[in-house]
Amino acid sequence: MAEILVKVDELAKRLLAALVAEGVHDEAAAATTKALMHASLLGIDSHGARLITHYCKVLRGGRVNPRAAVSCHRTGPATAMVDGDNGLGHLTAYRAVAVAIEIARESGIGAVGATRSSHLGAAGPYALAIAEAGMIGFATTNTDSIVGLFDGAEPFHGTNPLAFAAPVTGEKPWLLDMATSSIPLNRVLLYRSLDKELPEGVAADAAGAPTRDPDVAQMLLPLGGAGFGFKGAGLAGVATLLSAVLTGTTLDPDFIPMVNSDDISTPRNMGHFFLAIDPARFAGANIFAAGMRAYLDQLRAVPAIDGGKVMAPGDREWAVKQQRLRDGIPLDSDTAAFLNF
Amino acid sequence: MAEILVKVDELAKRLLAALVAEGVHDEAAAATTKALMHASLLGIDSHGARLITHYCKVLRGGRVNPRAAVSCHRTGPATAMVDGDNGLGHLTAYRAVAVAIEIARESGIGAVGATRSSHLGAAGPYALAIAEAGMIGFATTNTDSIVGLFDGAEPFHGTNPLAFAAPVTGEKPWLLDMATSSIPLNRVLLYRSLDKELPEGVAADAAGAPTRDPDVAQMLLPLGGAGFGFKGAGLAGVATLLSAVLTGTTLDPDFIPMVNSDDISTPRNMGHFFLAIDPARFAGANIFAAGMRAYLDQLRAVPAIDGGKVMAPGDREWAVKQQRLRDGIPLDSDTAAFLNF
Repeated sequence: MAEILVKVDELAKRLLAALVAEGVHDEAAAATTKALMHASLLGIDSHGARLITHYCKVLRGGRVNPRAAVSCHRTGPATAMVDGDNGLGHLTAYRAVAVAIEIARESGIGAVGATRSSHLGAAGPYALAIAEAGMIGFATTNTDSIVGLFDGAEPFHGTNPLAFAAPVTGEKPWLLDMATSSIPLNRVLLYRSLDKELPEGVAADAAGAPTRDPDVAQMLLPLGGAGFGFKGAGLAGVATLLSAVLTGTTLDPDFIPMVNSDDISTPRNMGHFFLAIDPARFAGANIFAAGMRAYLDQLRAVPAIDGGKVMAPGDREWAVKQQRLRDGIPLDSDTAAFLNF
Repeated sequence: MAEILVKVDELAKRLLAALVAEGVHDEAAAATTKALMHASLLGIDSHGARLITHYCKVLRGGRVNPRAAVSCHRTGPATAMVDGDNGLGHLTAYRAVAVAIEIARESGIGAVGATRSSHLGAAGPYALAIAEAGMIGFATTNTDSIVGLFDGAEPFHGTNPLAFAAPVTGEKPWLLDMATSSIPLNRVLLYRSLDKELPEGVAADAAGAPTRDPDVAQMLLPLGGAGFGFKGAGLAGVATLLSAVLTGTTLDPDFIPMVNSDDISTPRNMGHFFLAIDPARFAGANIFAAGMRAYLDQLRAVPAIDGGKVMAPGDREWAVKQQRLRDGIPLDSDTAAFLNF
């Protein structure tokens, strides 16, 4: 697919404008733009600017409410529920995170469930926002079925991400933002277009049998592959239990599919879950900071295998961000056209 | 290795007696026995009764304090720290879990860090104890280096487990108790004795190169294998950040090795981390219970691949427990001899 390089500020401006043109209010447009720019800058292109076309479509269709009035209900000294009013998931998620941080400052930890939300993009930006407030952050969501169970012949879980972040003095946060599938769906599509064999144990055919043929692959296998996929499937379940079961929102198989559905007018009632943990209430902020320093120094001192490179979670993504801030962001031609580049 | 079948009650009695004979006080002896019996009953034999020999050795050596006075310090409306006084980790962990549950009843979520603890056996029993109190439970710990980083040529993390549990009305809890390595160390040892090839991407030689030869394997690879091990390594890091960095205890590479160390007199200052989340403070206990029911019904209705079986986390273990309660627990000959069977 042809790509063009666009300037960072210009991309952010056009994303914002595209949302505002759909009637999205300022706070929501800013939240969605921030989340998309996070992904586009860090190299997570599947969850970056390219989603704008989809969001505009579902805003127009009525699935997503452009004028959402997000509300928050405190349910305990350390817990709250946020109702997204069927608006853009990024707004709901950033609001929930702000509440989680506020609660954690008071109580040491804050746990916030979100209901009546929608696709929040990548989960990383929300864990990151908590780390930027000096705390350990966790964010998760469930989504529609595309990943198999261990030994399962049909897709069951979504790619259900788990994102964790932690502050590091003097550098960018430690940041793990991972799908609980073995491989991202986009990687399968890429290998299909490249006519390249998939790694072993990451995808399965329509009957659930592992396949290395990207043209035959119809579902993703859970993290852990053919032999240990029960772990990835279990972790996908953790995302569902926290995001959907705990909040009373939609289970993975019950979702109206995000894409490839004729129904773009019915809200999907997606749930999310966020945690903020304040190090000040455990060993203390200074001991925590020294521990993160020691942990990362030890980790980065581990020798690499030939041709490899040892990195902490986020190291690769922060390097991509530096490079893209300098050189611009690659945009596929469809998205570029949609944004009038 | 020759095995004998022993009666459940008799095994529990002898484990308790062995600990008491080392001067361990009643509460600690009961906690350790409970945790070991959990693992032995559920088929997690690596973390079951066989550990008694090791615990007795380190109790005698002075590494572990048989008369530990565990103390708890409430640090916020939703947080606490528990000091294990260098006693048996199972006592520290069960105490921490009791505190987490109490806090969660008050505040909606309870987060407890543990310091000056020691090996807690499997992490599952502690998440399970929280589920048995009607809440979602999470338990984690870090341990000494045996698992590689993605692209790393030396072991870095421990097998750092993540355990989650959730209550299910009318049946045993949903229970995920997983190491963040691709494969358990014991599996490698088993394949070595069977002269059987390992699966691809689960273990590496002394230089970090993936190997399928169990005789050559010197370290475990993180969950996700050769291509996606950055996920497992990141999750192992989550365990370390919560258990050690947040609590100010020992980082994985700094531990005195659990086994194969001449030093059995110095405490290891191991940390753990526990969360209890009360569904009553989110969508409510009834909606949560209905959601768990719907989730499990949907999951178990997924067709299996040929020769496979679709199960929820814990299904296999609870079935093993039923069978072992009936037939007895298989014990290796060394442990059987140690316990005078």
